[in-house]
Amino acid sequence: MIKIVVAGFKGKMGLTATKMVLENEKFSLVGVLDPHSSEKRLNELSEFSTVDVPVFQDKELMVKEVQADVWIDFTIPTVAFKNTCFALGKGIRPVVGTTGFTESEVKEVQQLAKDKNLGGLIAPNFAIGAVLMMEFAAKASKYFPDVEITEMHHDNKLDAPSGTAIKTAEMIFAERGHHEQGNPEEKELIKGARGADYKGMKIHSVRLPGLVAHQQVQFGSVGEGLVIRHDSFDRSSFMTGVALGCEKVMSLHELAYGLENIL
Amino acid sequence: MIKIVVAGFKGKMGLTATKMVLENEKFSLVGVLDPHSSEKRLNELSEFSTVDVPVFQDKELMVKEVQADVWIDFTIPTVAFKNTCFALGKGIRPVVGTTGFTESEVKEVQQLAKDKNLGGLIAPNFAIGAVLMMEFAAKASKYFPDVEITEMHHDNKLDAPSGTAIKTAEMIFAERGHHEQGNPEEKELIKGARGADYKGMKIHSVRLPGLVAHQQVQFGSVGEGLVIRHDSFDRSSFMTGVALGCEKVMSLHELAYGLENIL
Amino acid sequence: MIKIVVAGFKGKMGLTATKMVLENEKFSLVGVLDPHSSEKRLNELSEFSTVDVPVFQDKELMVKEVQADVWIDFTIPTVAFKNTCFALGKGIRPVVGTTGFTESEVKEVQQLAKDKNLGGLIAPNFAIGAVLMMEFAAKASKYFPDVEITEMHHDNKLDAPSGTAIKTAEMIFAERGHHEQGNPEEKELIKGARGADYKGMKIHSVRLPGLVAHQQVQFGSVGEGLVIRHDSFDRSSFMTGVALGCEKVMSLHELAYGLENIL
Amino acid sequence: MIKIVVAGFKGKMGLTATKMVLENEKFSLVGVLDPHSSEKRLNELSEFSTVDVPVFQDKELMVKEVQADVWIDFTIPTVAFKNTCFALGKGIRPVVGTTGFTESEVKEVQQLAKDKNLGGLIAPNFAIGAVLMMEFAAKASKYFPDVEITEMHHDNKLDAPSGTAIKTAEMIFAERGHHEQGNPEEKELIKGARGADYKGMKIHSVRLPGLVAHQQVQFGSVGEGLVIRHDSFDRSSFMTGVALGCEKVMSLHELAYGLENIL
Repeated sequence: MIKIVVAGFKGKMGLTATKMVLENEKFSLVGVLDPHSSEKRLNELSEFSTVDVPVFQDKELMVKEVQADVWIDFTIPTVAFKNTCFALGKGIRPVVGTTGFTESEVKEVQQLAKDKNLGGLIAPNFAIGAVLMMEFAAKASKYFPDVEITEMHHDNKLDAPSGTAIKTAEMIFAERGHHEQGNPEEKELIKGARGADYKGMKIHSVRLPGLVAHQQVQFGSVGEGLVIRHDSFDRSSFMTGVALGCEKVMSLHELAYGLENIL
Repeated sequence: MIKIVVAGFKGKMGLTATKMVLENEKFSLVGVLDPHSSEKRLNELSEFSTVDVPVFQDKELMVKEVQADVWIDFTIPTVAFKNTCFALGKGIRPVVGTTGFTESEVKEVQQLAKDKNLGGLIAPNFAIGAVLMMEFAAKASKYFPDVEITEMHHDNKLDAPSGTAIKTAEMIFAERGHHEQGNPEEKELIKGARGADYKGMKIHSVRLPGLVAHQQVQFGSVGEGLVIRHDSFDRSSFMTGVALGCEKVMSLHELAYGLENIL
Repeated sequence: MIKIVVAGFKGKMGLTATKMVLENEKFSLVGVLDPHSSEKRLNELSEFSTVDVPVFQDKELMVKEVQADVWIDFTIPTVAFKNTCFALGKGIRPVVGTTGFTESEVKEVQQLAKDKNLGGLIAPNFAIGAVLMMEFAAKASKYFPDVEITEMHHDNKLDAPSGTAIKTAEMIFAERGHHEQGNPEEKELIKGARGADYKGMKIHSVRLPGLVAHQQVQFGSVGEGLVIRHDSFDRSSFMTGVALGCEKVMSLHELAYGLENIL
Repeated sequence: MIKIVVAGFKGKMGLTATKMVLENEKFSLVGVLDPHSSEKRLNELSEFSTVDVPVFQDKELMVKEVQADVWIDFTIPTVAFKNTCFALGKGIRPVVGTTGFTESEVKEVQQLAKDKNLGGLIAPNFAIGAVLMMEFAAKASKYFPDVEITEMHHDNKLDAPSGTAIKTAEMIFAERGHHEQGNPEEKELIKGARGADYKGMKIHSVRLPGLVAHQQVQFGSVGEGLVIRHDSFDRSSFMTGVALGCEKVMSLHELAYGLENIL
């Protein structure tokens, strides 16, 4: 059994992670950390009424009282960086969900992990399905350079295209390079019909009530088509990836950046 | 058996229509017309080697020699208008595939059909599937005003959005009116991501090799989604509609404009 | 403003309906009923802390104290039947979500509504999207008799095919009759590959974790295809239909059975 | 420029391959072979009227008169085996499309290629899109063991499931092993609803007019879904793979079996 602590357990992601650890029979929850908590034991909270696990407000205190193999971190970026260094310093493998580390911060914690000979994982996106979609899309673009991305989200999303769509386009670009698509003479009867242009490929953003987070990468070639689609229905979709991360870091001797690097 | 002549039989659509008439057991092909033909009988052409049907270069001559119930016309617009008037004058019901008639020309042939108490059909689009898609989309928009259209075509198509997409949007607008969709604060990180705007609804045009002609109309509402999709794989898709037209005009006493009006 | 009471408000559907009434500006919630409730006012419940509406355990008492136009009912079938008769007797238009009425019970309440000159609605399914899908599918089958249904649900669902799939098949059968599909010589290399057979059409049931409730009706004809798909992501999808029902019954003078009859 | 000969050029696949070679600027067609041909030069055939390339009825004669780098073979299995051995013997790299070689025949030609230090490729399926779909599906099943396959073909296909669906299922099985899916208590109200069972995963076969050859592999996990879909619209879809094969064999020193092994 892998012994795990969860930092930032009072946030939405932290809460979901805490539940995942409790439900997974390979894991044992040994402590949770959150400066915003006031409880001493998890069972003081109604949704964890049967769970007798200590709650900590201070990380120094936590590592003194409990022994952990893995440190799941869903705090804010500035805290997460300090926590990651702290965990590695104490011999605990970090599994961190954040998009907020700078390149030099990533390098720093990777060096620290190497020095300590410890595994670790920092992932901007824990949805395995999304990560597989991007990886498959990049590979397919080697053989099918003509590709369009359609991402679909609920209509309260502000930005278009989505971060995942842009990341996917970047990964495809790295594989196939710039490639001007469509008919050189094509013209838009209504502006925007052909979507956003990224290095010759097109991205379309659909926004409708009822949708959650979906993306389709569509390839076309002579006489055939290939479509890779990911649907994310709710936050719990990230937890399969967090669980995988907790297992993998146990056998790693370095800190990986990006879920794709442990698949 | 309905006796049919095909005008413009040497063109791609005319040729496909000729074959459809020959294969349909309710129909009997009695003659074909094309000023660009040099044959006297269809069996002079290798693909019709077993079909003993007269070929005409002149319409006056044709109606003298053969008696027809229905006149299928796949000629060019100017010819098609004269042919339609001519057919009605001779008591033959026209089934015409064209987008080229002016409003006043349509009214003129409709009056002529009424005077003669004859059925007839002029259709810009004979693909029943596409017509049903548009009709269903318009109806659904009464209950689901939030809708986006994605049309997908091969990458040698020049115009975006497609004519069918614009027609669909017009029909939806007639039903639901103007309705501003998406988040009022939404912003495009890359220009064009949110597609073409038509009265508040969005249209996206995908162009990829391998594709033929496809369209998807996607509705979203609280907790649910509805998608109507049509795929046209080749020209033969129009023939189910032409066949239906030939049958329907036999019992009509006026000339319908648009396949949707005989469904 | 339409004045509404909700019976069975402590159940999942009743609770969702109560919230819908409160959020819709055309509606005014005047009372809620549930024998299993112990509150006197809705604001005793934390999720309704700002809503000062009376709670009743007894229907006789409710109609004495509040005046309502519409009676939404999400109780169990036996209670729902009595409630529907009671509401009509008191001049209140019923909007009832149930699959449990017998044919003679439906007739009885329809007669009662006619006698009282009151509108009403009993619907086994309030998801407008699903109802439109079924209606469109039935219409399309007139022109495209070849059709296969694929329904997709989470993998804790016990029955296959789903009730909606069977209802859809029945509606298609009513329109197109029996029609043997596929190749007469076709053979299954693995038993079950071609799905369930209903009057010659095929039904396929997909069960996977992560899915909610989805159905796709797929038509094929020479050179073209038509797909109608409905996705239900959560219980709230029913509420657009309940809201529509509450508005429609105000102008009806009879009780409709099935949401499709008021669309 | 890679110098290529095409064996079996009078068959449908051979004809399509011949055209592909002529259209690809990296390739030069130096000869075509078919015992069923009577021409001496390709330009005797109307569709190749501008192509001055020799036609051979005898392979011995061909290799005497022209020098080739690659031998594309779309003959029947018995001939293909002899041709493959013959080509390797003459120092020409074979690219063979066949499903008909026995395991020992494959081993024999692989040994011969190794002895001659020559590249080669034998592929039962040249559709890169289909091969990528299978490869991606197998990889995804490591993380998402719950999967259902739906394959869709025109309704004159006799066998269900398709060979590609069974191959996909085998590749998934090799990755994830046996895994019983769905609810253990699930029951079919109509026999066959849950499809064909292969090691716990389900396969559904749709047959409709208008369809060509399509397959969808659908994965489900907590809160998310992943779909990989391939559409084959016509025979030309195989040619991207044949072209890739012709390029790759030039730098190989062994004979690969299966397109996936050169991707």
